[in-house]
Amino acid sequence: MAGGGAVKVYGAAISVAVSRVLTCLIEKDVPFQLVPLNMAKGEHKKPDYLKIQPFGQVPAFQDENITLFESRAVLRYIAEKHAAKGNKKLFGSNPLEKASVDQWLEAEGQSFNPPSSVLVFQLAFAPKMKIKRDETSIKLNEAKLSKVLDVYDRRLGESRYLAGEDFSLADLSHLPAAQFLVNSDEMIKEAFSSRKNVDRWWEEISHRDSWKKVTEMH
Amino acid sequence: MAGGGAVKVYGAAISVAVSRVLTCLIEKDVPFQLVPLNMAKGEHKKPDYLKIQPFGQVPAFQDENITLFESRAVLRYIAEKHAAKGNKKLFGSNPLEKASVDQWLEAEGQSFNPPSSVLVFQLAFAPKMKIKRDETSIKLNEAKLSKVLDVYDRRLGESRYLAGEDFSLADLSHLPAAQFLVNSDEMIKEAFSSRKNVDRWWEEISHRDSWKKVTEMH
Ligand SMILES: N[C@@H](CCC(=O)N[C@@H](CS)C(=O)NCC(=O)O)C(=O)O
Ligand SMILES: N[C@@H](CCC(=O)N[C@@H](CS)C(=O)NCC(=O)O)C(=O)O
Repeated sequence: MAGGGAVKVYGAAISVAVSRVLTCLIEKDVPFQLVPLNMAKGEHKKPDYLKIQPFGQVPAFQDENITLFESRAVLRYIAEKHAAKGNKKLFGSNPLEKASVDQWLEAEGQSFNPPSSVLVFQLAFAPKMKIKRDETSIKLNEAKLSKVLDVYDRRLGESRYLAGEDFSLADLSHLPAAQFLVNSDEMIKEAFSSRKNVDRWWEEISHRDSWKKVTEMH
Repeated sequence: MAGGGAVKVYGAAISVAVSRVLTCLIEKDVPFQLVPLNMAKGEHKKPDYLKIQPFGQVPAFQDENITLFESRAVLRYIAEKHAAKGNKKLFGSNPLEKASVDQWLEAEGQSFNPPSSVLVFQLAFAPKMKIKRDETSIKLNEAKLSKVLDVYDRRLGESRYLAGEDFSLADLSHLPAAQFLVNSDEMIKEAFSSRKNVDRWWEEISHRDSWKKVTEMH
C-alpha cells in the first residue's frame, strides 16, 4: 500500500477516525502509508506531532505539500483532489449532488457521531480497559442514536444511500463507529437490523471491499 | 434583504445555526428571505417542515432547485455556488487554502461547538427559561472549551485567522456561539480576552459588518 509518493496517515487502523480516512483512500485507489503512533506512550501529545495535529488526536494526514487533520476534512480533500480516480461518485457528480453528500456527511458528524462515539467507548473500549460501564450515559445515548436511526430509516426508504443513489462519503463516514456498535452490543445490532431500510443499507455498505480491507488491518 | 429570486432561510435569527448561515449570505451579498418558524408552537416538528429538515431543527435552506439542512453544509454550498460574488476569500482561493478552511471549519464543528453549545444553553438560555443551571456540566464544558482556546491561541500566533491570512468560513462559523458566551458570562469573556491572540482575533471577527447586521436582527 505504500510507495514513494504515497500519502501518509498517522495513527492506528483500529481508531474510528483513522479508518474513516483509510476507507476513503482505498475507494479512491490512492496509495498510502500508515505511520503508527504509540498512543499508550503518548506519542500523539508530543510537540512534533502537535505541529501537524494541534489537538493531539489521530489521524493526521500528509500529502506532498499539505498536512491536514480532522478526518472529514481529509475525506473531502482526497475526494476533490482525486476526483477522476477510483470511485468517482464519492462526492457526487455535480454541485447539487455534492451538496447532498456534504449535508449527510455533516449529519453524520453532528447527529450520528456524538451518541455513537460515547457508545463505542462505553461498549467496545471500556470493557477491554476494565473501566466500569456508565449505564445512565449508555441509556441516554442509545435513545439519541435511535432517533437518528429513525430519520435515516425514513430517508433510506426514499433513496438507496443517504445522499442519493450512489455510495458516497456520507455513507462511508458511518462505517467505523457503526461496525464497533453492531459488533459489541445486541441491543444496538437490533436497532440497526429492526429498521428495514437501515438494515438493507448497513448490509450493503458494510460489505464493500474497501471496508473489508480496512477491518483486516484492525 | 428579500426579493423575487431570494433564497429562503427557515428559522429565527437568534438561533446560533441560523445566524451562521445569515452571516455567510451577507458576506457573499446573496439576497435572502428569513422565513420565521414558531418553535414554541413546535412548527419545526410539523410534517411539512420535516420534509426539508428531517431532524426537526433550524435552519433549513431553500435555493431555486435545492433544499438543504446542516448549517455548515449550507455555508460550503453558498461559498462554492457564489464563488465570484461578495467576499471571494471565504473558502480560500485554491485547493490547499480551501482544505485549510475546511479543516478549521470541522474543528469548529467537532471541537469548539460541543462544549460551546452546552454552555450557550446553560449560560444564555436556561436563565431566561427559568431552568436551573447545571454547575457540574458548566465546569466540565468550560474546561473543554479552555483547551480548545489554547489550541486556537497557538494557531492565531502563527496566522491572522484560523485558516490563514484571510477571514474565512472557519472564523465565521464561530461567531454566533462565541458572541452568546462572551455576552453572558464573565469567566468565559475572560477566557477569550486573557489569551492574546484569541483576543485580537475575536475583536476583529466580531466587528465585521456582516456580523453586526445579523446581531441587529436578533
Ligand atoms: N474530529 C476528529 C476526531 C479525532 C479523534 O477523536 N481521534 C481519537 C481516536 S478515534 C483520538 O485521537 N483520541 C485520543 C485523544 O483525544 O487524546 C477527527 O474526525 O479527526
Ligand atoms: N447541526 C445542525 C444543528 C441545528 C440546531 O442545533 N438547531 C437548533 C437551534 S440553534 C434547533 O433547531 N433546536 C431545536 C431542536 O433541536 O428541537 C446545524 O448546524 O444546522
